[in-house]
Amino acid sequence: MKRINVAIAGFGGVGRAIAGLLLARRERYCSVFGVDIRLVAVCGSRAGNASRDGLEPHDFDALIDSLSGVDFILEARPDVLIEAGPSNFRTGAPGHAYIGAALDAGIHAIVISKGALVRDGQGVRERAARSGSLLKVSGATAAALPTIDLLEYNLRGCEFLHIEGILNATTNFLLTAMMEDGLSFAEALRKAQAGGFAERDPRNDTEGWDTACKLLILANFGLDANLTMDDLAVEGIQGITKAQIRTWKADGAVPKLVGTITREGSLIQASVGVKTLPASDVFAQVMGKNKAIRVRTDTMGEIVAIGGGAEPMATASAALKDLEHILIATR
Amino acid sequence: MKRINVAIAGFGGVGRAIAGLLLARRERYCSVFGVDIRLVAVCGSRAGNASRDGLEPHDFDALIDSLSGVDFILEARPDVLIEAGPSNFRTGAPGHAYIGAALDAGIHAIVISKGALVRDGQGVRERAARSGSLLKVSGATAAALPTIDLLEYNLRGCEFLHIEGILNATTNFLLTAMMEDGLSFAEALRKAQAGGFAERDPRNDTEGWDTACKLLILANFGLDANLTMDDLAVEGIQGITKAQIRTWKADGAVPKLVGTITREGSLIQASVGVKTLPASDVFAQVMGKNKAIRVRTDTMGEIVAIGGGAEPMATASAALKDLEHILIATR
Repeated sequence: MKRINVAIAGFGGVGRAIAGLLLARRERYCSVFGVDIRLVAVCGSRAGNASRDGLEPHDFDALIDSLSGVDFILEARPDVLIEAGPSNFRTGAPGHAYIGAALDAGIHAIVISKGALVRDGQGVRERAARSGSLLKVSGATAAALPTIDLLEYNLRGCEFLHIEGILNATTNFLLTAMMEDGLSFAEALRKAQAGGFAERDPRNDTEGWDTACKLLILANFGLDANLTMDDLAVEGIQGITKAQIRTWKADGAVPKLVGTITREGSLIQASVGVKTLPASDVFAQVMGKNKAIRVRTDTMGEIVAIGGGAEPMATASAALKDLEHILIATR
Repeated sequence: MKRINVAIAGFGGVGRAIAGLLLARRERYCSVFGVDIRLVAVCGSRAGNASRDGLEPHDFDALIDSLSGVDFILEARPDVLIEAGPSNFRTGAPGHAYIGAALDAGIHAIVISKGALVRDGQGVRERAARSGSLLKVSGATAAALPTIDLLEYNLRGCEFLHIEGILNATTNFLLTAMMEDGLSFAEALRKAQAGGFAERDPRNDTEGWDTACKLLILANFGLDANLTMDDLAVEGIQGITKAQIRTWKADGAVPKLVGTITREGSLIQASVGVKTLPASDVFAQVMGKNKAIRVRTDTMGEIVAIGGGAEPMATASAALKDLEHILIATR
């Protein structure tokens, strides 16, 4: 049976969920694809573990200090790297080093952290093209919600005229709480933080940067645009007042943080901001931690997808969807 | 440049829309896939046209009597057959003869008419497997709305726990008219027929059979079930009274004709019937000629897709999406 070696760089909640799900699906990979999948290395920023024969779940709790870094991963000779580390879209670190080295070495890459894709999307795409490696980014573009898939697969052949997305679960949760419970932004944020739905420093979400990152990757990878963060107008939800909420409620309007991509001829533009929608708009029904995308096309009309799933499993499952697409493309 | 010959059997509104769109996209096929696509034969039930060098749009208005039938199509030596004829799910004719002969001859088949897939889905799949031909059915399962795609591609790797669909545009249009304009079923039907949104004999739509056909194909092709029409409980909208409509409106409930697939272990069951949904349910927002599907999975949570597009272009575009997937899989 053909053997496929997988390595995971970044071993927090998402990395661990991927590892667990990958091993749980070994029988599926064997029966559906006829491949013997082995998880040959995992690492966080300081520690990791590796095995030529393949790691087992108990190995995840026995990480060894200093087994980490690009060389550690390359030495395990994976066929596929899944990169699930922390993300910094201003520097691209630490993912960029792992992804770049893997692609250069002919290793297929499944990327979850957005940093490298935002900072140097063009560069990593070129490195993949040069070595013939596949580069998959579902996990970086709203994970279980089909976004880049929709453009590349379901709507294949269409021209994309307009794309809108509710792409960040935290801000959608906050806006839902502000509208339904009449909370201020600060009160809603404290509630979300207490429930584990917002980070201690929530600005990456609340100021619109996470939405902007996903939108940028979608435009550059899905529409072949070449945008940088400086090209995007980005507005968050942190400035919304209780008075605005009262007015919107009185008007029957529903606020959502929406990322928008417009296309006129070859000009592709993107922006992030609060939109107020009528209650009859399907986007107004996207509540809590759900996400959504709406794509207007020339020949297939308008398609909306809504979803999300519980994290970290949903993102893990999106990464392993990418893995199956790689297995199909390379068999 | 690699040449790909396409033939179209069934040359009504959908077949003609496919032919026009295919020729309009020749440059795209050339630049994206490096293939020279030629439309070598088209036929309706009584007349057709063929050209070894490829038909041009003006040839569509110069169909020649008696150029029709399975032998006529096979003689044109297509690589891909697009079958867009009328559909009879009780006999499978006339599509079954075209599709079966094409698959046996190693020709890839893109199927739009549901008859053969409902009547003998297992048979055509086996014939495709035997010859190594690809068999694509997006056009038969709600066309521009991603349904089978969703299961096979976007949610790949997941287990499917529950599937619901608003799969028939005509009944959704009728129910919307009955609820919004307070029309009886008969009044709504006359309005739809006058607007060209319902057929003269509308029972295939209104009695739920069209929904049942799509659901059956989705279960058998997307979930590897082996259901026949006799396995489905099928109920339509023709019996809905004005009194029911008034009650639903008073209760804030929204009726939809919903096809449902449930799965418990290896037992897959399917049924079609009217469901009344709370206004907050996203399915309640699927209005007019739109369609929708909702899939509950083990690891990606719940995904909803809503769409439709204007016919016949949307179905034509779905068939040519299938064509591009064939071009990708065979390059």
